[in-house]
Amino acid sequence: MKILVINAGSSSLKYQLYNMENESVLAKGRVERIGFESSILAHEPEGKEEVTEVSEILDHTTAIKKVVQMLIHKEHGILSSIDEIEAVGHRVVHGGESFSNSVIVTEEVKQEIKKLFDLAPLHNPAHIMGIQAVESTMPDVPQAVVFDTAFHQTMPASSYLYAIPKALYNKYKIRRYGFHGTSHDYVSDRAAAFLDKKPEDLKIVTCHIGNGVSCTAVKHGESFDTSMGMTPLEGLMMGTRSGDLDPAVVPYIMGKVDLRISEVNSMLNKHSGLMAISGDSSDMREIEEGMDAGDTNAKLAFDMYEYRLRKYIGSYAAAMDGMDVLVFTAGVGENSSTLRKRICDQLTFFGIELDDKINETRSKNERRISSSNSKVEVLVIPTNEELVIARDTYKLINN
Amino acid sequence: MKILVINAGSSSLKYQLYNMENESVLAKGRVERIGFESSILAHEPEGKEEVTEVSEILDHTTAIKKVVQMLIHKEHGILSSIDEIEAVGHRVVHGGESFSNSVIVTEEVKQEIKKLFDLAPLHNPAHIMGIQAVESTMPDVPQAVVFDTAFHQTMPASSYLYAIPKALYNKYKIRRYGFHGTSHDYVSDRAAAFLDKKPEDLKIVTCHIGNGVSCTAVKHGESFDTSMGMTPLEGLMMGTRSGDLDPAVVPYIMGKVDLRISEVNSMLNKHSGLMAISGDSSDMREIEEGMDAGDTNAKLAFDMYEYRLRKYIGSYAAAMDGMDVLVFTAGVGENSSTLRKRICDQLTFFGIELDDKINETRSKNERRISSSNSKVEVLVIPTNEELVIARDTYKLINN
Repeated sequence: MKILVINAGSSSLKYQLYNMENESVLAKGRVERIGFESSILAHEPEGKEEVTEVSEILDHTTAIKKVVQMLIHKEHGILSSIDEIEAVGHRVVHGGESFSNSVIVTEEVKQEIKKLFDLAPLHNPAHIMGIQAVESTMPDVPQAVVFDTAFHQTMPASSYLYAIPKALYNKYKIRRYGFHGTSHDYVSDRAAAFLDKKPEDLKIVTCHIGNGVSCTAVKHGESFDTSMGMTPLEGLMMGTRSGDLDPAVVPYIMGKVDLRISEVNSMLNKHSGLMAISGDSSDMREIEEGMDAGDTNAKLAFDMYEYRLRKYIGSYAAAMDGMDVLVFTAGVGENSSTLRKRICDQLTFFGIELDDKINETRSKNERRISSSNSKVEVLVIPTNEELVIARDTYKLINN
Repeated sequence: MKILVINAGSSSLKYQLYNMENESVLAKGRVERIGFESSILAHEPEGKEEVTEVSEILDHTTAIKKVVQMLIHKEHGILSSIDEIEAVGHRVVHGGESFSNSVIVTEEVKQEIKKLFDLAPLHNPAHIMGIQAVESTMPDVPQAVVFDTAFHQTMPASSYLYAIPKALYNKYKIRRYGFHGTSHDYVSDRAAAFLDKKPEDLKIVTCHIGNGVSCTAVKHGESFDTSMGMTPLEGLMMGTRSGDLDPAVVPYIMGKVDLRISEVNSMLNKHSGLMAISGDSSDMREIEEGMDAGDTNAKLAFDMYEYRLRKYIGSYAAAMDGMDVLVFTAGVGENSSTLRKRICDQLTFFGIELDDKINETRSKNERRISSSNSKVEVLVIPTNEELVIARDTYKLINN
């Protein structure tokens, strides 16, 4: 069974085609600049050469059609016919309180996702465009949706409520939802398997450190607390997002600088974080290079980023009264041995001891980087959100 | 030497008169409803009966005059003449980056405090009124100011900076300042003395839990990080303050409910916290009574309040890579054995073990409440901000 996984953004669309017999990726790629004149389709078929095509792709339906054409292309293709795609799985950022699991797309499901436009104005409308594009291109193919928020729906009220008037929750559903759920779910599950233990027996802190950054307290296999909140802005310092901030700073800035609501959101989401402190980069590799070259702004950006991560790890050890496993994942988490070392070397009080040699060895495999003396197992687990989407879709289609 | 300590609010003024020979309190009291028709002066002279007087007190100068009259009153007084007051010490909430220590009041100092009106619009103007009232009533008496923020000026940049565009710090001084500094300073110092150790050798987490709530990581005698931020809104859940919140919630609410900046501030500072979640009280004693009586809202409010405190304690243990001592202070911290027990019983991973019996024994003394097996010393240290103000004033006057 072949399953197409789609992550649709407002002007982009990423895809991976899975062969579910062995969970291998047959092809992957992305369409960028949808809605612009010179849109780009970059296609990477397994075992064949990569290909890039520039054309005018004005909407998501055209984008999906182009992707399908590429998948069945004589030279660059992988399939002999579109009919080989038996299901499509979509990533959806916000499932609100309506979805605690992945589901098959129905009219009702689409209506629910639309109701959440308000909470995820940048993401959910694009996901609906992606779903509709598939409907019009492959009308008979079943589709599933996998939510970034679903894994976190197990959080207790004391984790997800804000201490603000309850009407704001009852009427506007203002609460912590958390994101990156697919990743936290996957790596915590893999961590248990790696250690040959049951998730139910473990207290795990998972750190998803990519361009977005979030930490989750995974208690006995379930999300107990997570650092992102109503939106992905809360919590840790990120590439261009501020993370935690005195809530009074927002109205203060609005009064001082006369910013509109959309401008404040843009400042905190797109012009803050590593970018604001380093002054010129949101990329941890460049920050580390700058730091090594003696750039004090890069060093400060790194210090703040690391310090805040470390504090969240400590807070979740307190939240669960324990931490058996600490997991690093996603781009920075999987690749920055410097960041991992700086965090772990300053958590000796928690019983953490790193194996410096293994930590510094580059690898794409799941691995333990703590020493045999460490009371906490520290693991690097490469994340794979697309695989989870493919698997969930597969399970739903076959049930 | 007799020193008068004053804490001036916008419509209130609290005072304590100290005899510095033995640091005893000769009298204390408060003026309420300054600026209203029926203002109240409640006066408690040591060894004499309390007295309450209702009159029209329209400004701070009249309030100070009334206080002085009461202090030299034939029946209720303690002093034979106003000249016995040799110095006055004021509590000032916001010292910004200008003050890392207490100072004698000069024209320049008053100008600096006025420059900070913007950062503490509710507090600093009232403090200036208090200082001017003393100037006009006792023109020859030296005055000192003790800042809530001063103790936290030792924080490193990675603790005090927000990850937002640097212009906001450079131009508007938007950063973490922290408050309750006098209290955190005092109790961490007393904790070291109680344990017969030097502050320089200790990593202490101090929890000031009153109507306002803040936590500080005191590393080697200095504030290393603290939970309150640019304003006292950030950090822990409080009586009526929300504490931490996704920063995106603020513009979201403003868009939804069409609130003005002042209304958002009022909602988050005066109508949130325990009050919002319990639905009817901001007082921890009432919350605990409600919880005991089976009120689910009171239980949720308690759970959230406790949980967030516990997470901050864990995060500061990570911040300092250690926690030798955990200190509870202020109204709730000194009196709620239930809250202390709930926190400590869920920090076993940190090596904390409570002595339940001692924890439940009511006392006004400094005391250890951890068991002899506990790896972290857990102490209850009654705070005394007025004494610190009197001492700092005494030291400054005599130098």
